[in-house]
Amino acid sequence: MERKVGIIGVAYSKFGVRNDVNFNELAYESFKEAINSSNIDLKDISFLIVSNVGVWSSEPLPAVSLGEYLGLIGIGTLRVEAACASGSAAIKIAYDMIKSGEHEVIAVIGIEKMNESTTPIVVEMIGRAGNYFWEFENFGLTFPGYYALYATAYMNKYGAKEEDLCEVAIKNHYYGARNPKAHFQKEVTLEECMNSRYVAWPLKLYDCSPISDGSATVILASEDFIRKSGVKEPIWIRSIGASNDTSNLSKRENFLSLKATVEAADKAYKKANIDKDKLTKIFDVIEVHDCFTIAEILACEDLGLFKRGEGYKIIREKQTYIGGMIPVNLSGGLKAKGHPLGATGISMLVELVKQLKYEVEKQRQADIKNGLALAHNVGGTGHYAYVTILSR
Amino acid sequence: MERKVGIIGVAYSKFGVRNDVNFNELAYESFKEAINSSNIDLKDISFLIVSNVGVWSSEPLPAVSLGEYLGLIGIGTLRVEAACASGSAAIKIAYDMIKSGEHEVIAVIGIEKMNESTTPIVVEMIGRAGNYFWEFENFGLTFPGYYALYATAYMNKYGAKEEDLCEVAIKNHYYGARNPKAHFQKEVTLEECMNSRYVAWPLKLYDCSPISDGSATVILASEDFIRKSGVKEPIWIRSIGASNDTSNLSKRENFLSLKATVEAADKAYKKANIDKDKLTKIFDVIEVHDCFTIAEILACEDLGLFKRGEGYKIIREKQTYIGGMIPVNLSGGLKAKGHPLGATGISMLVELVKQLKYEVEKQRQADIKNGLALAHNVGGTGHYAYVTILSR
Repeated sequence: MERKVGIIGVAYSKFGVRNDVNFNELAYESFKEAINSSNIDLKDISFLIVSNVGVWSSEPLPAVSLGEYLGLIGIGTLRVEAACASGSAAIKIAYDMIKSGEHEVIAVIGIEKMNESTTPIVVEMIGRAGNYFWEFENFGLTFPGYYALYATAYMNKYGAKEEDLCEVAIKNHYYGARNPKAHFQKEVTLEECMNSRYVAWPLKLYDCSPISDGSATVILASEDFIRKSGVKEPIWIRSIGASNDTSNLSKRENFLSLKATVEAADKAYKKANIDKDKLTKIFDVIEVHDCFTIAEILACEDLGLFKRGEGYKIIREKQTYIGGMIPVNLSGGLKAKGHPLGATGISMLVELVKQLKYEVEKQRQADIKNGLALAHNVGGTGHYAYVTILSR
Repeated sequence: MERKVGIIGVAYSKFGVRNDVNFNELAYESFKEAINSSNIDLKDISFLIVSNVGVWSSEPLPAVSLGEYLGLIGIGTLRVEAACASGSAAIKIAYDMIKSGEHEVIAVIGIEKMNESTTPIVVEMIGRAGNYFWEFENFGLTFPGYYALYATAYMNKYGAKEEDLCEVAIKNHYYGARNPKAHFQKEVTLEECMNSRYVAWPLKLYDCSPISDGSATVILASEDFIRKSGVKEPIWIRSIGASNDTSNLSKRENFLSLKATVEAADKAYKKANIDKDKLTKIFDVIEVHDCFTIAEILACEDLGLFKRGEGYKIIREKQTYIGGMIPVNLSGGLKAKGHPLGATGISMLVELVKQLKYEVEKQRQADIKNGLALAHNVGGTGHYAYVTILSR
């Protein structure tokens, strides 16, 4: 009999440029709210997992300073890094650690304070999230450049246009405008998106997620603990799938799909006994990794929601808004909610837990029928992928 | 019924200044040997955990490049960091991940290539493994300085002398001289140690572990897998305990003990049903975290092997050599084997597995009676501590 693992407390901080707080204070913002919502005592926590990439921060060993600041001393702790998928990697190990019987309650905190660095440094460091020595240093490929390769290949194969990419930005800004914690809380028009300057053709400024500061906290607990402590409505983790891909993009078969996503999703569906032919009917709401607009289109196809080459058309028809085939990124996504790397994957779960519990703002609340949600988190350009399935 | 987790493959690379290999090649050196010794197929591995601090390396996201280089694609992967305890933290989560039933075989690789940086940068980055903003930047405390505070407090309280600290270096160099993979393979005399220059009084050059490059790999597997695959003599992980302490040393009660070690050991002993009154009779051999000579003395007392204030006397009497009360650091320890941060904790397990299987060089092979061994790995100045108990 497998031990079930539930989520009993969630929160994320205001995302954005957070020069108003220091590193520890930013973490505390989500930690405090998550602890309060969980109704546990700090002493119940036997392990702290910190998700942080942190190459731009002057705090190279964040778990040390956070442990003291948050009052989590005398427990186990470590930091996890899997590039932009660090948050989901942290959730994955916390899930396994509780399932193993070694722990009852684990706190997972994701944090990034990227605006301590300048934009060129951030661009350089994120660029290294691929193959550093060959493709980055020798060929000068940057992170937007990597995804631009995918965008052009997709457009060439399936006939998608720059306007179609912008449709993702328009939707995500629409919901970001309704999320008080989002980095950007304003809608954008097709014209604004199309007129924004190129970062790496065909990706324009409005196709790219921003450089954000933020933290997110999830408190996980065993079913035993949940029953004893009387938590009324936990959200359960049904399964987590993870995969990776080549460091060099030049070794990939094509630029039409992130294979790691396909594999991670397959593993997660299999473990949770999900029928892959009915995904849009099974899941009430999903969050996908839209670091660039093309990434959301690829994610929807790689997850198996839509057929190959159909994603951009379905998105254009507004089928990923509330009321459509399947609502995607009602938080605003990385695009508008923001993308503080270590916090991103964890904030996806925060968002989905609140969606499943009808706790988000009305204008961006999905209709919950089956009580099932999915989070998809990528590190690098499909170098890592994690898919997490939640249920009421 | 708990799932047992065994170690089926181990190796570490030659430690030292390894400008002869690049990052991936250094990892491969131990990975290949560990895979060969385990007799498994790469396809059996469903997760890769990389232990790496890496702030001095130009490879900021090592799990990506290692995954491709080692042929581990299509599986889950992430990086773990817990300062100098990163290796044990990686083992801890791999252990829990297999115990949970989510995985059968996991590869854990620790690697550090510190000599890519200059010594001043390494000293600065390691110095940050405490409280960066207050004690490091404002007070200028370096890593040797932190441990010097402990050394002077201990000497003042218990009457230990600089010569007593040197006894640890003499023993560890004695065994390092008999370990072909050690960074330093030469013995040192009391005179040489006492005449070496001060780094942070009373710690001299020969009281300090070196800046090393190296990698270490451990392959862990479930009991189910081990039985099916016919591995004849796995070594089992009996328990792992972990704890942390304040970021600021100024918030510690005293400088006579690393509380995190005491707590981590207590947790490990409790889980493994170890009688704390008979430790030196129970364990055949142990590896402790001797980043500085004083750290080995503190470790022996904090683990409960010797009474408070007695450690340095017992070590002076050569009771931690083979044939004494309990053999400690027969690998040469961090002091002589070397200390490539991310690899250190994993190399301790490699060493102990080989000791328990009578596979090390004769001159440094412990007498194995009960088949029990213990590894103690510290991050920072007791900011993290992990204690791992192994058995035949």
